[in-house]
Amino acid sequence: MPVTARGEATRRRILDAAEEVFGAKGYHAASVTEITQRAQVAQGTFYLYFHSKREIFLQLVEDLGEQLRAAMRRGSQGSGGRMAVERDGFAAFFEFARGHPQLYRIVQESDRVDLPTFQEYYIRIARGYARGLRAAMEAGEIRRMDPEALAYALIGIGHFLALRWLIWPQGDSSPAMQPAGQNGSNAAQDGSKASGQEPQLPEYVFATLLDLITRGMAP
Amino acid sequence: MPVTARGEATRRRILDAAEEVFGAKGYHAASVTEITQRAQVAQGTFYLYFHSKREIFLQLVEDLGEQLRAAMRRGSQGSGGRMAVERDGFAAFFEFARGHPQLYRIVQESDRVDLPTFQEYYIRIARGYARGLRAAMEAGEIRRMDPEALAYALIGIGHFLALRWLIWPQGDSSPAMQPAGQNGSNAAQDGSKASGQEPQLPEYVFATLLDLITRGMAP
Repeated sequence: MPVTARGEATRRRILDAAEEVFGAKGYHAASVTEITQRAQVAQGTFYLYFHSKREIFLQLVEDLGEQLRAAMRRGSQGSGGRMAVERDGFAAFFEFARGHPQLYRIVQESDRVDLPTFQEYYIRIARGYARGLRAAMEAGEIRRMDPEALAYALIGIGHFLALRWLIWPQGDSSPAMQPAGQNGSNAAQDGSKASGQEPQLPEYVFATLLDLITRGMAP
Repeated sequence: MPVTARGEATRRRILDAAEEVFGAKGYHAASVTEITQRAQVAQGTFYLYFHSKREIFLQLVEDLGEQLRAAMRRGSQGSGGRMAVERDGFAAFFEFARGHPQLYRIVQESDRVDLPTFQEYYIRIARGYARGLRAAMEAGEIRRMDPEALAYALIGIGHFLALRWLIWPQGDSSPAMQPAGQNGSNAAQDGSKASGQEPQLPEYVFATLLDLITRGMAP
């Protein structure tokens, strides 16, 4: 594999194009040709980096996981105390999900293409997460619970809040899609892109999340 | 559509067969012929109930959602107080996930086949959930938060705990799959089916879940 900075930039361009193509079409309908066209590289160049459609798809899932973990680390670096790490880490996660609206579809599809790749995506997030939680428990910053179970619970919270308020509003809209809550005052900030802007996680949703986990994890 | 009890039993048999076939092969690779063979009905009988592979797939997702909501309602019926409803509802959800190891794959795949069907699956769960939470808030049983955000957070917790401890252990095992926690004492009860039994959610995982949400939602 090319190892120069220019080589790495080309690999990056191919992976970004793959994210768009796999995201829009799905694994089965996507083709290497579409990816190379979107990346504006020759087919021969593609095969300097990847052996097959399957290989680039699985490397894309791994790459998205690395990007996400790096974004969350950056976001919470220097945050003082575990709950500040949670707040800033969640904020970084939501920002990442906004910027990668096809993230879930791509990752979920890897469940069928190669189960270990799908599992690794979450296992790596959970492993680092559990490590941080365990350290915070030992420091007395949060209550003692099972760190791995707590990590998956927190991953689940972030996943479904982003799905509802960041991923769905960017997808095909549907008249069948009705918010579950009937809270009229929230209707104007429910993350829909009726205004043509990228959806934001509404403040009341973020506040509910922080309230739930701050009390839920308090020493 | 046939409406007699016998007709309903046949429809049920076809849907159960579809769950197995779509679960094992995925939407694209599955065929109506395989479904009818597994259900032991004639092709002509299939078309008394469903127009196409796509239609039965989407009805299956809807049916699984109905079954799940009914199981959770049954499980928490008569439970005294909101936290008892949560405990019994989660227990019923985990039991359902154990009995439907392909549930997630089928539901996730509907995201690409027909987004509104995928959304409706969760929106209906969240709508009923938020209604119950709102009533518990008004009764002073739990703290006031946004009911819909709380509903999606709780759905997310259940989803990822079941994924890690009930769904994955029933799928292809992989040497790459390592628990994120390094808590040796939990290793024997991590839900793996090394013993050949159906995985159970470990007690310490359920305890962590209840601890997190009980304190997280306390008035």
